[in-house]
Amino acid sequence: MNVKHAETSVAATLTEQVLERLETTPDPRVKYIMQSLVAHLHDFVRKVNLSEEEWAQGIDFLTRTGQMCNERRQEFILLSDTLGISMLVDAINHQRGGAATENTVFGPFHVEGSPQLPYGADIRFGVEGELTFVHGKVLSADGQPVAHAQMEVWQVRPDRLYDVQDAQAPHMQLRATFHTREDGSYAFWTVKPVSYPIPADGPVGDMLNACGRHPWRPAHIHFRIRADGYQTLVTHLFAAGDAWLQSDAVFGVKDSLIVAFNPGTAIHPDTHETAALEVEYDFVLAPQMS
Amino acid sequence: MNVKHAETSVAATLTEQVLERLETTPDPRVKYIMQSLVAHLHDFVRKVNLSEEEWAQGIDFLTRTGQMCNERRQEFILLSDTLGISMLVDAINHQRGGAATENTVFGPFHVEGSPQLPYGADIRFGVEGELTFVHGKVLSADGQPVAHAQMEVWQVRPDRLYDVQDAQAPHMQLRATFHTREDGSYAFWTVKPVSYPIPADGPVGDMLNACGRHPWRPAHIHFRIRADGYQTLVTHLFAAGDAWLQSDAVFGVKDSLIVAFNPGTAIHPDTHETAALEVEYDFVLAPQMS
Repeated sequence: MNVKHAETSVAATLTEQVLERLETTPDPRVKYIMQSLVAHLHDFVRKVNLSEEEWAQGIDFLTRTGQMCNERRQEFILLSDTLGISMLVDAINHQRGGAATENTVFGPFHVEGSPQLPYGADIRFGVEGELTFVHGKVLSADGQPVAHAQMEVWQVRPDRLYDVQDAQAPHMQLRATFHTREDGSYAFWTVKPVSYPIPADGPVGDMLNACGRHPWRPAHIHFRIRADGYQTLVTHLFAAGDAWLQSDAVFGVKDSLIVAFNPGTAIHPDTHETAALEVEYDFVLAPQMS
Repeated sequence: MNVKHAETSVAATLTEQVLERLETTPDPRVKYIMQSLVAHLHDFVRKVNLSEEEWAQGIDFLTRTGQMCNERRQEFILLSDTLGISMLVDAINHQRGGAATENTVFGPFHVEGSPQLPYGADIRFGVEGELTFVHGKVLSADGQPVAHAQMEVWQVRPDRLYDVQDAQAPHMQLRATFHTREDGSYAFWTVKPVSYPIPADGPVGDMLNACGRHPWRPAHIHFRIRADGYQTLVTHLFAAGDAWLQSDAVFGVKDSLIVAFNPGTAIHPDTHETAALEVEYDFVLAPQMS
């Protein structure tokens, strides 16, 4: 028996042994996931002939990634995003036909309980930037208005940080929760979002660096729209013309989500400024699957 | 185009996109590992049709695993051990033919800088248990003694904890560093090791529980033996007759590493007690590969 054959045989036997040990898993779905995970991880280790030093680097990387997480930072979501896993899970779970607006990645910067604001409110909360008026409707697939839909919006500040990344931020900024009017309409005032690097001072930044990859995301506004009888829509609107649209660090861009920030004409109800920019976009919700 | 086809196609395109993004990786080995990792992880996600809730549970599990790690606890090594990854890496990297002693898992309880002790010393350091005399030789594959080999030993206490798991332990216990004599011989006094559960109060314990698995390891003594011109040997000696030999939680048992703890006859040089048990084992080192 030659050494190569022995190696293959020992390694395969071990995988069988682990899969068999998982046969006792009471929940069939957990069993299926765990057995598939073990099979794929073992295949990976065998395929690349992982060295002990590489294994130790992997353990250290995963440990540092976990320890980087806190209330303001979720490094494992960043890792999932930058490896395309998040968008893959999204693609598997949100395959929509027809007119329905496409999903994209949720990201790590959403906050529960953002301020509840009325139609046409201002979410700047003291942030300075190019005044932008965003408006449109939430519709069903057959073009009917969806009234009272809950729409959460959140976006980055012109200094390239989300409020949650700034421990000095006095309160929530550039995030709010709206509800559509009877005719499905929504509107709010904000600043133009900027392209920004994902946090690159941790293990995920090290990984991007080792792979010769940049950490930039094209400018976008996040939306989560929820309404009874419809699938929840988690998506972004991306600013047309952004330099990073072709190489988003988290693979989130879809052509249908790129919108023009046109010169504005709307007048701000309180400050009477004219909008520098204006975005109009109608979201289309897919029906809840029964 | 039906929905199933669209799903497959979107998901496959995404994987291609991520693999292509990794083409810029400067180091060819890093590139190969990263591309293979992404391909295998994406295959896994697609194969099990991972739901968003399951993805979120995975993120939470990995985060908690990282946050469980500290100077005394390495939860990601435990995870690797309990999924058979550690033994697989070992099998790939330490395929030895002929008489050479087999490797097994390193485990998370080794400590650098254990006390340097002479031939025949006592490593109990105040720990009570069945007095055991362990002795034998370190040999080359052709049966010649290996003089001055460094032999580190470490083992669990009869209370089922390693010294490093006990914040109250006044100093190192049941661990030491020896060097073989001119004739390759080694010897030390200890207590009989016991079978013990791996730490099960963290995420890995939750995983074992969800899989209907127990956390027990059969009783063993750890060894790491290093000598110039030979491959480093990381292994255990397992106590014959242990109830957990067939189902070691970390898949570490190999038949050739199971040894008898026989009734003892040796006399302790300081206390003049007779050994309750005696283990004789000769380790055989494989030559360094050039």
